[in-house]
Amino acid sequence: MDEPRDKGLTLNPKYDRDGLITAVVTDAATGEVLMLAHMNDQALALTIETGLAHFWSRSRQSLWKKGETSGNMLEVRDLRIDCDQDAVWMKAVPAGPTCHTGARSCFFRRVGAEGLSAVDTVE
Amino acid sequence: MDEPRDKGLTLNPKYDRDGLITAVVTDAATGEVLMLAHMNDQALALTIETGLAHFWSRSRQSLWKKGETSGNMLEVRDLRIDCDQDAVWMKAVPAGPTCHTGARSCFFRRVGAEGLSAVDTVE
Repeated sequence: MDEPRDKGLTLNPKYDRDGLITAVVTDAATGEVLMLAHMNDQALALTIETGLAHFWSRSRQSLWKKGETSGNMLEVRDLRIDCDQDAVWMKAVPAGPTCHTGARSCFFRRVGAEGLSAVDTVE
Repeated sequence: MDEPRDKGLTLNPKYDRDGLITAVVTDAATGEVLMLAHMNDQALALTIETGLAHFWSRSRQSLWKKGETSGNMLEVRDLRIDCDQDAVWMKAVPAGPTCHTGARSCFFRRVGAEGLSAVDTVE
């Protein structure tokens, strides 16, 4: 265990070889997990500074302000970091559906022994 | 968008270059995010089969049944997969503190403009 990083009160993110940490977003009202994405140092700094979720798009290789094109921004209500500082948890108020499929949450399918089943309507 | 993967009902995880997907665990009772870890295909299969959380430890490079040494297993109540199938969300009943620091959740520190602050007591 890296004591200062794991238990201290200094922000010291452990970025991976691509310079990223993982970010999980839950709905501040319902607790539902809405999405999972990644942040580089700039995305994390902008999220803290503006109170709006920013990520790093691995597919587009660019900074991504969530909702910039769709309007479905995520307003941060609480931001936490985990023990080894390679992941953050954001409680947010979503302005609309979070998933690019139109679903409220990206996690709209259940995994069972028999495969997947839908648990949320894709609009 | 990869239509079948993003909207279909066939389990087809998109493993990264290390053969892993990300797993986020929330407390089935409180909704709190407890931890974030990774799974390879074997860990995912064992989780589905046994109903107990299994991960792949990147630091130890080995399969990891959560709670095998600490006793603090995670009993799966619901398992979801996200749109692009590179992340799962597990609602679980934790047998004890989930974090290796002794905290209930790994996300026991808040990130603010002034740095970190503790929001949960590390026992």
